[in-house]
Amino acid sequence: MAKKNEKMVDAITSMDEDFAKWYTDICKKAELIEYTSVKGCMVIRPYGYAIWENIQKILDDSFKQLGHENVCMPMFIPESLLNKEKDHVEGFAPEVAWVTHGGSEKLEERLCVRPTSETLFCEHYANIVHSYRDLPKLYNQWVSVVRWEKTTRPFLRSREFLWQEGHTIHATAEEAIEETERMLNCYADFCERSLAIPVVKGKKTESDKFAGAVSTYAIEALMHDGKALQAGTSHYFGDGFAKAFGIQYTNKENKLAYPHQTSWGVTTRLIGAIIMTHGDDNGLALPPAVAPIQAVIIPVAQFKEGVLDKAKELLDRLLSVGIRAKLDDSDNSPGWKFAEYEMKGVPLRIEIGPKDIENDQCVMVTRHNREKSFIPLDDLETAAAAKLLEVRDGLYEKALENRQRRTYQCKTMEEITAVLESKGDGFVEAMWCGDEACEDKVKEMTGVGSRCIPFEQHEISDKCVCCGKPAKHMVLWGKAY
Amino acid sequence: MAKKNEKMVDAITSMDEDFAKWYTDICKKAELIEYTSVKGCMVIRPYGYAIWENIQKILDDSFKQLGHENVCMPMFIPESLLNKEKDHVEGFAPEVAWVTHGGSEKLEERLCVRPTSETLFCEHYANIVHSYRDLPKLYNQWVSVVRWEKTTRPFLRSREFLWQEGHTIHATAEEAIEETERMLNCYADFCERSLAIPVVKGKKTESDKFAGAVSTYAIEALMHDGKALQAGTSHYFGDGFAKAFGIQYTNKENKLAYPHQTSWGVTTRLIGAIIMTHGDDNGLALPPAVAPIQAVIIPVAQFKEGVLDKAKELLDRLLSVGIRAKLDDSDNSPGWKFAEYEMKGVPLRIEIGPKDIENDQCVMVTRHNREKSFIPLDDLETAAAAKLLEVRDGLYEKALENRQRRTYQCKTMEEITAVLESKGDGFVEAMWCGDEACEDKVKEMTGVGSRCIPFEQHEISDKCVCCGKPAKHMVLWGKAY
Repeated sequence: MAKKNEKMVDAITSMDEDFAKWYTDICKKAELIEYTSVKGCMVIRPYGYAIWENIQKILDDSFKQLGHENVCMPMFIPESLLNKEKDHVEGFAPEVAWVTHGGSEKLEERLCVRPTSETLFCEHYANIVHSYRDLPKLYNQWVSVVRWEKTTRPFLRSREFLWQEGHTIHATAEEAIEETERMLNCYADFCERSLAIPVVKGKKTESDKFAGAVSTYAIEALMHDGKALQAGTSHYFGDGFAKAFGIQYTNKENKLAYPHQTSWGVTTRLIGAIIMTHGDDNGLALPPAVAPIQAVIIPVAQFKEGVLDKAKELLDRLLSVGIRAKLDDSDNSPGWKFAEYEMKGVPLRIEIGPKDIENDQCVMVTRHNREKSFIPLDDLETAAAAKLLEVRDGLYEKALENRQRRTYQCKTMEEITAVLESKGDGFVEAMWCGDEACEDKVKEMTGVGSRCIPFEQHEISDKCVCCGKPAKHMVLWGKAY
Repeated sequence: MAKKNEKMVDAITSMDEDFAKWYTDICKKAELIEYTSVKGCMVIRPYGYAIWENIQKILDDSFKQLGHENVCMPMFIPESLLNKEKDHVEGFAPEVAWVTHGGSEKLEERLCVRPTSETLFCEHYANIVHSYRDLPKLYNQWVSVVRWEKTTRPFLRSREFLWQEGHTIHATAEEAIEETERMLNCYADFCERSLAIPVVKGKKTESDKFAGAVSTYAIEALMHDGKALQAGTSHYFGDGFAKAFGIQYTNKENKLAYPHQTSWGVTTRLIGAIIMTHGDDNGLALPPAVAPIQAVIIPVAQFKEGVLDKAKELLDRLLSVGIRAKLDDSDNSPGWKFAEYEMKGVPLRIEIGPKDIENDQCVMVTRHNREKSFIPLDDLETAAAAKLLEVRDGLYEKALENRQRRTYQCKTMEEITAVLESKGDGFVEAMWCGDEACEDKVKEMTGVGSRCIPFEQHEISDKCVCCGKPAKHMVLWGKAY
């Protein structure tokens, strides 16, 4: 039996040996995904999809509390519609999939499969927004989008991925900017509270903003290997799209005016972020808020009288207080089960055997640090709930500690190169003059690109890390997924 | 103010005048959908999408209680994969949308946008099913699919539509057949209990079954105009797909065997069924279980002191017992609001004005029959809950009565033609010998096609309605949406 256990653990590449391989091993072994014959697309398996459903549930509730409504737009965009906003089409046309035939007939106009839906929302807004009374519209949709990527990786970059895209339209620029910031904060709170992933909030540089946006905000997280991952974005469009699509409304002064728009989104990428932030060599480690199974009960010596009955009793008690619990009474050995649920990242393991029953207790083991406690059965529900909070906090602290350890303040290009070489990849905080040429040069010389201009600024120096001219911003730099 | 009200009501075509126009008027006026420049595709607006979300929530809970798990398959199917099962590809290839280019490059193999996902599930099952221990797999997904229809109508027939598709795989034929029937019953219960739509359960004839199926079961509903609508289908595949896709498992006797499969689905068509079953000349009438707003509170003389406060108090009380309530305190007139929420099909209207407050009461009006009651404020929650049950039952009874009135037993072709002409469209119950030629001839001569062979059989005669030979089944015939 121990052999089975070892075999399973052996099957994952260690993260230090090959982080990329470790990542895909977890995706497969934890049964999150399976490859398909559709290049660059994957099956999201039940365990992976249940994580996404939990993410959806929490975010969707937040969106609705903030007054947003869900809609559903077509998945196709006629080429002429995509072409209406110049910057937007330039950004997306090179990476869309084109439908050219319906049945055996060639289409008069080809249709792209949506890479994002600004154009469709704009067309709709032009139809339904006429007066200031029609504003704001706070819409969102949960769909999949397609971008024809050359190299793909499960969750991180695939040709089709799931996301939500919020699209809002407001009477004034102020309202729209406020919305852009509100949704970025909504994402940041979600990542930190529910996913236990610390994030840096900031603004993208000009060269890095969304095609068609006035400004793009993002949250950036640092993965276990020191690479950065953009976990969510929120865009302010000004009235550029409104002008391109002829969206006008009659304001309170009875004059025609252009409204202001935003869009914002997070994707199944968040599952990749969870894996690479919390996972370890034993597999996945899931934050309790989105874990499909929050607590697994594993009976020890389950063939002995009373063990399974007691285990079922514990299961019912946990379920009745709203904990997503599961009892594994299969005939695999406890050791095999321990390894299996560690691989699947279940936050809390509860063991119950004849001796425990005698002592009126059970054993609780938290996944992220493998700490073991003996819990009186009377305290089961309270202790389990407390342990789940502990797991969330523990995961967060560990991730924050990793980020802090790997965030470097640098005053010169040489310092950047040296610190990355000696300490490994991470976030670099360094000053920037605002010139795109310097941004490009930092990337070219040191390998790290600008991730964002953090809202929380502190001065590392008063000079641009690249050209030495007066600095405008502290920029967060990193290698990105 | 009354003028506004009248204007709105005038704007709908009456159902007797032009049922098709009445239908699309409701779709637009109740703000369920909006057209787009993507031919045959529509925007599902917030109010329409909220109905779908409620449908999803109830069905998804049922599916999960029956042990199903959600997954997500790619939206694309490579042409070679679609081609693997002969009958299936023949059924679907003529109506799929083809992606031929990714960015500026021509694809080596074209991809269709899924019209349904049997082929993808089969490929996946071939990868993950090896032993009897891996069976059954009870999977489902909530996605959109595309079928290149020539003529389209909102919800009833569109090039893209939303649905769920269940796909299951079992060790034995018996288990798979049981699943097929279980899911048909699940759909029928949902339609009758939650949507208040009576349905007939039955089996499709050979000529009408799903491409690649051994047998197809369906639930059929009768719309207000006497036309039939297929509200859900459940297919038994035998081991045909397993053989075509090379899915094999090692059974308990350690021998290789082919598993047996099913698939089943309902679509956003159900929203069309709700409209055409319950709607009237004042607009939509929604069954409470899926109504986005179950009760709307309309203050009368809301500018008078205390009215709005009392209305808000009622709102809070209804919300606190889980009733989806809304208070409309906009400055539109009560009359305008009455018409607006009748158009939107809100099941229960609650009016509260100064006189009501004096009498410690409110007025409740049920949408489907416009019956008015005075309710003591103390009884608000109980009365509202009871009224919502009444609405569900009232809608169901009305629909059942319509179906019964429009279900005709016929022994000859002449009887069919005569009854349809004198009483209008409806369900025809008539006997059939089982010969496809007779099935075709009935349709050709009388205009009604076979809808299904009802599970509940009764003998209208012992002879086929067409050829006079011995009858095998009573068939339900009708004109279909």
